[in-house]
Amino acid sequence: MQKPGLPKGTRDFGPLQMARRNFILNTIKDTFQLFGYQQIETPAMENLNTLTGKYGDEGDQLLFKILNSGDFLKKVSPEDLSAGANATLPKVSEKGLRYDLTVPFARFVVMNRNELTFPFKRFQIQPVWRADRPQKGRYREFYQCDADVVGTESLVCEAEIILMIRDVFSKLGLKDYSIKVNNRKILTGISEAIGAAGKEGPLCVAIDKLDKIGWEKVKEELTERDFSAESVEKLAPLVSLNTDYKGKIEFLKEFLAGSEIGLKGVEEFEEMLTILGQMGENLDFVDFDVMLARGLSYYTGAIFEVKVNHVSIGSVSGGGRYDNLTGVFGLSGVSGVGFSFGVDRLYDVLDELNLFPEESLKGTKILLTHFDQKGFDYALSILTKLRKAGIKAEIFPDVTKVKKQLDFASKKGIPFVGICGDNEIQTESLALKNLETGNQEILKIEEVISFLQNN
Amino acid sequence: MQKPGLPKGTRDFGPLQMARRNFILNTIKDTFQLFGYQQIETPAMENLNTLTGKYGDEGDQLLFKILNSGDFLKKVSPEDLSAGANATLPKVSEKGLRYDLTVPFARFVVMNRNELTFPFKRFQIQPVWRADRPQKGRYREFYQCDADVVGTESLVCEAEIILMIRDVFSKLGLKDYSIKVNNRKILTGISEAIGAAGKEGPLCVAIDKLDKIGWEKVKEELTERDFSAESVEKLAPLVSLNTDYKGKIEFLKEFLAGSEIGLKGVEEFEEMLTILGQMGENLDFVDFDVMLARGLSYYTGAIFEVKVNHVSIGSVSGGGRYDNLTGVFGLSGVSGVGFSFGVDRLYDVLDELNLFPEESLKGTKILLTHFDQKGFDYALSILTKLRKAGIKAEIFPDVTKVKKQLDFASKKGIPFVGICGDNEIQTESLALKNLETGNQEILKIEEVISFLQNN
Repeated sequence: MQKPGLPKGTRDFGPLQMARRNFILNTIKDTFQLFGYQQIETPAMENLNTLTGKYGDEGDQLLFKILNSGDFLKKVSPEDLSAGANATLPKVSEKGLRYDLTVPFARFVVMNRNELTFPFKRFQIQPVWRADRPQKGRYREFYQCDADVVGTESLVCEAEIILMIRDVFSKLGLKDYSIKVNNRKILTGISEAIGAAGKEGPLCVAIDKLDKIGWEKVKEELTERDFSAESVEKLAPLVSLNTDYKGKIEFLKEFLAGSEIGLKGVEEFEEMLTILGQMGENLDFVDFDVMLARGLSYYTGAIFEVKVNHVSIGSVSGGGRYDNLTGVFGLSGVSGVGFSFGVDRLYDVLDELNLFPEESLKGTKILLTHFDQKGFDYALSILTKLRKAGIKAEIFPDVTKVKKQLDFASKKGIPFVGICGDNEIQTESLALKNLETGNQEILKIEEVISFLQNN
Repeated sequence: MQKPGLPKGTRDFGPLQMARRNFILNTIKDTFQLFGYQQIETPAMENLNTLTGKYGDEGDQLLFKILNSGDFLKKVSPEDLSAGANATLPKVSEKGLRYDLTVPFARFVVMNRNELTFPFKRFQIQPVWRADRPQKGRYREFYQCDADVVGTESLVCEAEIILMIRDVFSKLGLKDYSIKVNNRKILTGISEAIGAAGKEGPLCVAIDKLDKIGWEKVKEELTERDFSAESVEKLAPLVSLNTDYKGKIEFLKEFLAGSEIGLKGVEEFEEMLTILGQMGENLDFVDFDVMLARGLSYYTGAIFEVKVNHVSIGSVSGGGRYDNLTGVFGLSGVSGVGFSFGVDRLYDVLDELNLFPEESLKGTKILLTHFDQKGFDYALSILTKLRKAGIKAEIFPDVTKVKKQLDFASKKGIPFVGICGDNEIQTESLALKNLETGNQEILKIEEVISFLQNN
């Protein structure tokens, strides 16, 4: 007999995990909708030519490919075997599993450009798959949760992203976190200002590691990457810059005085703050981090990254503005800005901080229990009344020992049981027992309904 | 430049479709939870040895297989090429995409049998994939929506399935439908009673087509399948049986007098009706169809099928009881009963009958529009107040012509716009325009909020 297992790097989600995940996802959904974002879904499978080449060579290797249906070998010759897997791949596979939600979204926008209303604000919550080596906290199947606006360059979008993060965190009960913000143009300006124009790519890669490896190691890496000693020297005051956002803006205006694009980045940052101010928001929570780089090379404007303080988990949200999301599919000039929440990481954060609200995870509110067939029949008649009043209710479906029924309720986390004994049948009532406190009282059915609706 | 497309048989869901699909899925979820069902999710990928052999030879062919990562050819020899795809498959693929939600659920129950509380009531709403030939209404990726109870033989579960179907249909606004019910034991009994004991398999396959091809053709098929003329003759009165459920029960008690299992089936059916009666339900809507068979051979008790009348779409829900769901994974004696809703078909039904409620599909309630930078700044300050009051609100993010902003609102289906002109700024109000009626009036912000909360 076969012993069943799961493919490595994948997970089942049982009832408790699902309730907690839904708590997070519904909170995020509510916020997205409050801000006018609309949900879309795209297929799990995409044509390989949609996916390939969009995530770098490493990404291409991590794509899960679907074997063609039927005789998948029919185009393969013995010579292909010696040519190797990469050469043979196009003959046995035409489709792959979604690697992220960004490329499918770009494809969606291009294919539906004549029907969509721009600026188009969409959100998308779906699993993605990566053939990564599984390890703690890294899975081969995981949900992404993205929101993007395309078709406008308005900095209202950036401001609203910050507000959405705050709204979600506030609803999740998260208080101590920082929203780091920077602008890719400032990074470009910095590379110009330190005499390393055009090298913001390697500059970003190196300083992206500042948090992890420290300034000394980053200096070494910059030197290895052919930054001159003079450039590295010029960068130092920025790294040690320790002031509030106003001070940083002042500093940068001077530091970037010779860089048009750098000053444009500062200006965009200031305008975003102005908008937030006009929206009545306190600006203290915006953590202007002029060294924040994020790895992705397609960002062209604002970049965001969110960390929860005092937990062992890395960034839980991030994003930025890009100028040419859809160019690769033949539609240029579509500017956009987006961000995403890391659902698995948020789950771990809420778990670590014990922030999952008991109430929102509750399923069934009351289990009707019985001693014999007569009580069972009576319970059936009550059940309908409870459900008609919108109360999540169950009957233990077999006539059996009451102890077994109470065990069932307590294991399933059902807070109340309604005991149907002879006395209750005669008085058309229920003995309502609170399983947490052990309190029990006899109530008329109408009283049970109004009690449970309010508790 | 590459022109993007979708793999055949797959679909994108845009905002309107998603809103409608969510309306259906949320309705179903609410009902499942009202009846005490808990949600689980399983991975898209399963090990091929979990999937293979569970859906028959044809099903095995329709499984989407995932190519092994890395050098997928490393175990393949030139001899394999001549041996063919089936022989080579295990060397290039170990995983496949979920084909339904039943087999993954069985695997889940077996793997988690020590943690689960039985009877375990679970629901699951996830996509499945089949490499079927795509055609109208048949897709390679589609959602299934299943609910099952395992670990009890109580007929309360069968009764509750019928009630859940009614609850969902009532919330969806569907009134004219029939819930066909039968019992597999009755079919077994019939095969015994007509002198074709042990042949209920081919009997079910043939009479499953009664609706489609009629009795004459079914007779031909039965003859081809080696049923004697006498057996076919004996079946005839059942096919023409035209009476209410009470009459059918009377008839069957006589017809099946010699079949223990057949009488057991009638008894189960009666007990289910008794339970529904005790729950205060009207029994007229139960359509006892003694010829209802459904294809799936693993049903052992009640079977259900639901059709909406006066639409061109086939059955929208179905299910039944099975005795040995988990046996194939080494856990025997787990009886269960389950059913599922066909989401795509329900969508088509509601669309055909024009039953999607406008209100539940609405996204953003109000768009703030402006004539110039001053109005834009004013709108920003209002926006925060609206959202804090829970009102889904947007600002048009660029300062541009009002006509363009109104077009945006009407294309996105936003019912109200709040116009921010000089007069409104001075009086701290909004000109609230109803885009459907064209009515416009000037209201204080607090008035706008309370109006939108109630409209």
